[in-house]
Amino acid sequence: MNKAIPEPVTKLVEAFSRLPGVGPKSASRLTYFLLRAPDDVALTLADALRDLKANTRFCSVCHNITVDDPCPVCSDSMRDQRTIMVVEEPLDVLAIERTGSYKGVYHVLHGVISPVNGVGPDDLKLRELGPRVEKGDILEVIIATNPSYEGDATCMFIEREVLRNTGVKVTRLARGLPVGSDIEYADAVTLTRALQGRSTL
Amino acid sequence: MNKAIPEPVTKLVEAFSRLPGVGPKSASRLTYFLLRAPDDVALTLADALRDLKANTRFCSVCHNITVDDPCPVCSDSMRDQRTIMVVEEPLDVLAIERTGSYKGVYHVLHGVISPVNGVGPDDLKLRELGPRVEKGDILEVIIATNPSYEGDATCMFIEREVLRNTGVKVTRLARGLPVGSDIEYADAVTLTRALQGRSTL
Repeated sequence: MNKAIPEPVTKLVEAFSRLPGVGPKSASRLTYFLLRAPDDVALTLADALRDLKANTRFCSVCHNITVDDPCPVCSDSMRDQRTIMVVEEPLDVLAIERTGSYKGVYHVLHGVISPVNGVGPDDLKLRELGPRVEKGDILEVIIATNPSYEGDATCMFIEREVLRNTGVKVTRLARGLPVGSDIEYADAVTLTRALQGRSTL
Repeated sequence: MNKAIPEPVTKLVEAFSRLPGVGPKSASRLTYFLLRAPDDVALTLADALRDLKANTRFCSVCHNITVDDPCPVCSDSMRDQRTIMVVEEPLDVLAIERTGSYKGVYHVLHGVISPVNGVGPDDLKLRELGPRVEKGDILEVIIATNPSYEGDATCMFIEREVLRNTGVKVTRLARGLPVGSDIEYADAVTLTRALQGRSTL
């Protein structure tokens, strides 16, 4: 290793480089920025990182990220607990919440079925959906996986395998969403349209 | 704040957003990546951040970032301690070291004179250079500020104000560097050329 680089600098550059979208150059930039910035910028970040790991868990009902279990959405009596929206990621929940058009609850899969990446149904929170629907007197399941190949395959799996014998109404977001895109980047209006135009499977 | 976002998540997104080049979208991406990644990715980063602030200081001789004071370069008897290269930032030291063409020592200013940004000579490690040159039996000072307006102004200030009465030979990197660019992004060959073609002021 280069003598001119102290070990703490190297280590932080390496730690930053492990983040997605951060290359060695950006990692150096961030590190040297923090060296000059007031102490609390680095220390606040360090505390927030520890806090994230120490104080968050997955909701035992919807599997979204939460501090309290069950999460505020699942324990909110003002929300429609008989409509479940199935999403891939916690970020998708945020996107839907931003529209203000949805008053039901969620089910976060934490991924999609993707044989290419070695992700099968059992790597996701898929099997949990069936018992939840049967037990909870659910009226409708809205499938809001991304409009991609994997999202479609996951949607089909949910309909045919997971919810087959439950008799629940299964819908999915309208194809107002451009195919191949990502739900979390959709604007609120498009997302609202897609929600309003959802079609029965 | 949105009920669907737990506080530790919001806090980490905010902490990431304070870093240069990280917007709210990237900050969310990084946060949700860390939620799913193994614990040690976030914890290693947290430790590295604390370590950076706890275990680094500025070398009392050259003002570069270091664990030990004086730094390994300043205390290396194999290096030419009678040639000083003046650079703006620690990242510039790394760029010069990568060329392998320089065997002297450094003087890190930690910025450039920039009236627009309210940075004057006393905000930098500029005044320290004069006594260091007088005391240290220095043969040559190579000014390696960026080839920009502020870099040129700082170079001129060093020559006319700081080193005026020292009688030391003052040189600067050749204008092989494209004007307006940044030293830390120059490739090693260009930087070597600029070092070889340095001109007497």
